[in-house]
Amino acid sequence: MITNTEFRNAMSKLVSAVHIVTTDGKSGRHGFTASAVCSVTDTPPTLLVCMNGNARSYEHFVENQVLCVNTLSERQADLSGVFASPLTADERFAKAGWTMLATGSPVLCDSLVSFDCQIDEIKTVGTHSIFICKIIAVKSGDGTAKGLAYCDRAYHSVVAQG
Amino acid sequence: MITNTEFRNAMSKLVSAVHIVTTDGKSGRHGFTASAVCSVTDTPPTLLVCMNGNARSYEHFVENQVLCVNTLSERQADLSGVFASPLTADERFAKAGWTMLATGSPVLCDSLVSFDCQIDEIKTVGTHSIFICKIIAVKSGDGTAKGLAYCDRAYHSVVAQG
Repeated sequence: MITNTEFRNAMSKLVSAVHIVTTDGKSGRHGFTASAVCSVTDTPPTLLVCMNGNARSYEHFVENQVLCVNTLSERQADLSGVFASPLTADERFAKAGWTMLATGSPVLCDSLVSFDCQIDEIKTVGTHSIFICKIIAVKSGDGTAKGLAYCDRAYHSVVAQG
Repeated sequence: MITNTEFRNAMSKLVSAVHIVTTDGKSGRHGFTASAVCSVTDTPPTLLVCMNGNARSYEHFVENQVLCVNTLSERQADLSGVFASPLTADERFAKAGWTMLATGSPVLCDSLVSFDCQIDEIKTVGTHSIFICKIIAVKSGDGTAKGLAYCDRAYHSVVAQG
């Protein structure tokens, strides 16, 4: 087995997209910054989100049973910081424009792409839960920006090779 | 619900790392190119890999019960193509140098980072299976290269922002 520090240092090298994962419903409006989002299958269209069970908004996601994965463009590193800060939910959402699709979860107006989802199943592994989500609706941006990338504990832009 | 095409087009915008996922054991040596890999928790150190149940090497991973996630550096786009090609397993592995850590799964010599894992649990969702894996050992590269990024159906390098 490896240590937590070895795990974190190794994982920090991986290039990932950056997402603001949101929810709304009877448990209120909440959102957090995430990189642990993964495509699962297109039959039926499914993605997964990993979330720390100790996060302050965890129970709200479980109760609302819906979420939206808003993938950030390279112009939105600031918003990533906002949704990982000590600000309240209302203060966080005030920093950007929002709309909605099918589930009522907040959809970021100028996201790279947004996936509006129903949480189908929750699988707990250690400290974290894997939300397995059916994608109900998508919204794509205007195509003028590339995705924001995160690795080596810093924000990056991507540049096509060769 | 969205269509398969809408799902694929939306997912293609996400920046991801590129990995060669390998296995070895009583069912032989196999490997495939993957982007659907995700950190789960550091307590205990866990990652997940999504794999199509119809992939030709799927049953070998299930039988061996071990795998190694070899994350590619920006210099290794060619190897990504090799492990997504019609070549046989032996032909694929002949294109690079390999070592091993704890489980016996092939560890790419000059990977950005490699995660040697025991498959703890397999969760099936539609056409795909989620391998939930305990990380037994890691190997980091020499730190001279950044990770390879994939988005918009093309290979990219990453460049730090401002």
